[in-house]
Amino acid sequence: MSRQVSILGAGLVGSLLSVILKKKGHEVTLYERRPDMRTASGYAGRSINLAMSARGWKGLELAGLREDLEAIAIPMYGRQLHMPDGSQAYQSYSKNNEAIYSVSRGELNKRLMTLAEQNGVSIKFEHKCSNVDVANNKLNFSLPDGSTQAVQADLLFGADGAFSALRQSYTHMDKVNCSQNYLEYGYKELNIPAGKDGEMMMEKNALHIWPRGNYMMIALPNTDNTFTCTMFMPFEGPNSFEKLKTEAEVKAFFDEKFGDAVPLMPTLIEDFFTNPTSSLITTHIMPWHYKDKSALIGDAAHAIVPFYGQGMNAGFEDCTILSGLMDVHGEDWTTILNEYERKRKPNGDAVAALALQNFVEMRDKVGDTAFLERKKIEKELGKRYPDQFVSVYEMVSFSHTPYNTAIQCIQAQDSLLHAIMKEGDFFKNVEDGRFTAKLDTYITEYHNAVQQLDFA
Amino acid sequence: MSRQVSILGAGLVGSLLSVILKKKGHEVTLYERRPDMRTASGYAGRSINLAMSARGWKGLELAGLREDLEAIAIPMYGRQLHMPDGSQAYQSYSKNNEAIYSVSRGELNKRLMTLAEQNGVSIKFEHKCSNVDVANNKLNFSLPDGSTQAVQADLLFGADGAFSALRQSYTHMDKVNCSQNYLEYGYKELNIPAGKDGEMMMEKNALHIWPRGNYMMIALPNTDNTFTCTMFMPFEGPNSFEKLKTEAEVKAFFDEKFGDAVPLMPTLIEDFFTNPTSSLITTHIMPWHYKDKSALIGDAAHAIVPFYGQGMNAGFEDCTILSGLMDVHGEDWTTILNEYERKRKPNGDAVAALALQNFVEMRDKVGDTAFLERKKIEKELGKRYPDQFVSVYEMVSFSHTPYNTAIQCIQAQDSLLHAIMKEGDFFKNVEDGRFTAKLDTYITEYHNAVQQLDFA
Repeated sequence: MSRQVSILGAGLVGSLLSVILKKKGHEVTLYERRPDMRTASGYAGRSINLAMSARGWKGLELAGLREDLEAIAIPMYGRQLHMPDGSQAYQSYSKNNEAIYSVSRGELNKRLMTLAEQNGVSIKFEHKCSNVDVANNKLNFSLPDGSTQAVQADLLFGADGAFSALRQSYTHMDKVNCSQNYLEYGYKELNIPAGKDGEMMMEKNALHIWPRGNYMMIALPNTDNTFTCTMFMPFEGPNSFEKLKTEAEVKAFFDEKFGDAVPLMPTLIEDFFTNPTSSLITTHIMPWHYKDKSALIGDAAHAIVPFYGQGMNAGFEDCTILSGLMDVHGEDWTTILNEYERKRKPNGDAVAALALQNFVEMRDKVGDTAFLERKKIEKELGKRYPDQFVSVYEMVSFSHTPYNTAIQCIQAQDSLLHAIMKEGDFFKNVEDGRFTAKLDTYITEYHNAVQQLDFA
Repeated sequence: MSRQVSILGAGLVGSLLSVILKKKGHEVTLYERRPDMRTASGYAGRSINLAMSARGWKGLELAGLREDLEAIAIPMYGRQLHMPDGSQAYQSYSKNNEAIYSVSRGELNKRLMTLAEQNGVSIKFEHKCSNVDVANNKLNFSLPDGSTQAVQADLLFGADGAFSALRQSYTHMDKVNCSQNYLEYGYKELNIPAGKDGEMMMEKNALHIWPRGNYMMIALPNTDNTFTCTMFMPFEGPNSFEKLKTEAEVKAFFDEKFGDAVPLMPTLIEDFFTNPTSSLITTHIMPWHYKDKSALIGDAAHAIVPFYGQGMNAGFEDCTILSGLMDVHGEDWTTILNEYERKRKPNGDAVAALALQNFVEMRDKVGDTAFLERKKIEKELGKRYPDQFVSVYEMVSFSHTPYNTAIQCIQAQDSLLHAIMKEGDFFKNVEDGRFTAKLDTYITEYHNAVQQLDFA
């Protein structure tokens, strides 16, 4: 028996979910608060470039959209580090030449919407959900003409982002736990245009980072040979947005801190004062569903900060898991939504924690010699012991290992690498049979410590 | 320059605050969503009996209501423990015969409202605040006839409890962090009536506890010689509300677990199925104020669980602190509200944590011989070293030491008592000069460890 599905939010996750549900035979209507971004002028939308990795691709595969998207995705095989002294360093992400992919959020969203409509999903734009009567599954919308509209939902998904109306309505119910936490950092987008002959001004196949301790700038490549830069900086304090009020202050700051980038940023001052300074939020909520009637998915269930590039990937993986549960449990939606929450909630918590931790890595540790050395050793360990050791970064970005498993490996990997690095130069040591015998023991100990975890 | 003050909520904290502000020359209007409890029939309101202690009394003193209330307050000098085997034990709260006081929440609230009106405060009942436009300080009320009313506030306080409309409106602003967490326990009120000659059926001047590990019952005395009992129990699990669905199940459970209380509870079955099972919430939010326009106070700022008997006491202390800041800073409300948040937020967090910790103490540890011994030793230490040692319980209940200081003393007191008790029978040991010399050292070490904290 198919259901009438209502989805709040025609963003990335809502659009993907609509296609998956439609392909399984359900009737699906998407409700989107904004106008159609494919036709509306002046659409800005959310901005941080996406880094698509394994979990994202898998979701796209389910929707049959992988090949289509590969054409507009730029592989980034590693981090190109821009040091304060003007020197650069490169750190590859994977031992197997795997990449994360720079994708335009807007372009991806438009294609997913079109695919949804091609599959028979109805999208209702400019439908702003003001609140949901959760017990009765009734949606209240406000429309552009000021009128309101009530809709009786059958099966409802809230894919409406960090400030989800469904999430908000859940929080008013008894025994619903929730939190929202803003980072004391803001972000601002800036641009590096193509050169005068249309050429790219930096290495194309890398994620560029200017690590500066407690703040940083990153840049991701676009298909039009531009780069989108994002500055992450505290709102207040010594190096902060509040200290950059005048053109002279901004110019002096960038000249001093990002000297190699400034010549590539002709519109720096204009961009800085035109583009907003946005904030970054992490949310938690429990439960994620209400009986067999509704559930939260993507940012609505677990809004996270962008520093692991996993926000969209995690949301698409929610869709993959839900799809798998539908295959197993058929039309038993009580079980499907119970199991979805049971399986995904710990992973939502884990990816939120991983994303916060990775901010410290990106803005601070990546500039550190010992850290770069450790990353090289991790890759060598992965090659030497492919069945026993996978670095946490690779688990998160290049595998489908649950986030909650990856995060539980961190401490064991920290101990392992600490022990190995205490012995001196790894790449010299591994020439020595006594060291490699010891290394076998270390790796076996590590593997024993983590193997009871759920890697499936 | 006096201000026009609007206060949301004519509960205990809102009513007290209104009197304090009025006495300082401000115009005050209280908006209360419920009808007037002094005239409305069938008013139930919130139920857990109050345990008034030092911080609460100080707030009442500011309002000039202390003497009036002492007449209806019943001192409880300690805990009367009802063990599973039917035996009883008594544990006094203080080394100085200090008490916490059982007070009727409804009676206290009525008197505070009347006092407010006598002082010239206007109370508008049945004004339910639906939301606040925080930036513009505009209040939107819905009235019983279905109409709405907008009110422009000058200075606004949200004293409207755990589900505060002002708090809710704050959470929609950028950079507001918040959380709500329900305990997996519910509570239900039950009754012990007076005897057939109107006499009290248990010790009057004690807080009765039936500690049972992961659940418990408590009873507080009322002025009409009845006791109000409250059962705290998990919603689900082996001993839980979900397991008590039939009269036979309730009867069997109480007969087995609370054998000595059952003969005193003739309406047990009726009460159990008539009275609701309520939930318990802890909330956090930051910030607590918006510019010089509005602030949260009491449960609206820090809803806590009732196990330390500090909810109302903490709210009244908020009023005391605010009153002191008005005395110092005059009409500089930006400074007053900034300082109020800076001083009180850490204490709100601390009392929330203390309340959660004390649940474990009440339901489980108080039945333990070593714990009772420790409490006796703590009192003896307080007598022998009055300038150096005050137990955390006494700090919280009988002093005005900041909660945040009290909670920071816990670990040091745990170490101290652990060291002392490891030496064997304390009350025998203190006869020995070598032990007391050692004790002097322990106490000096403890005192050095905590003396840099803020006890003022």
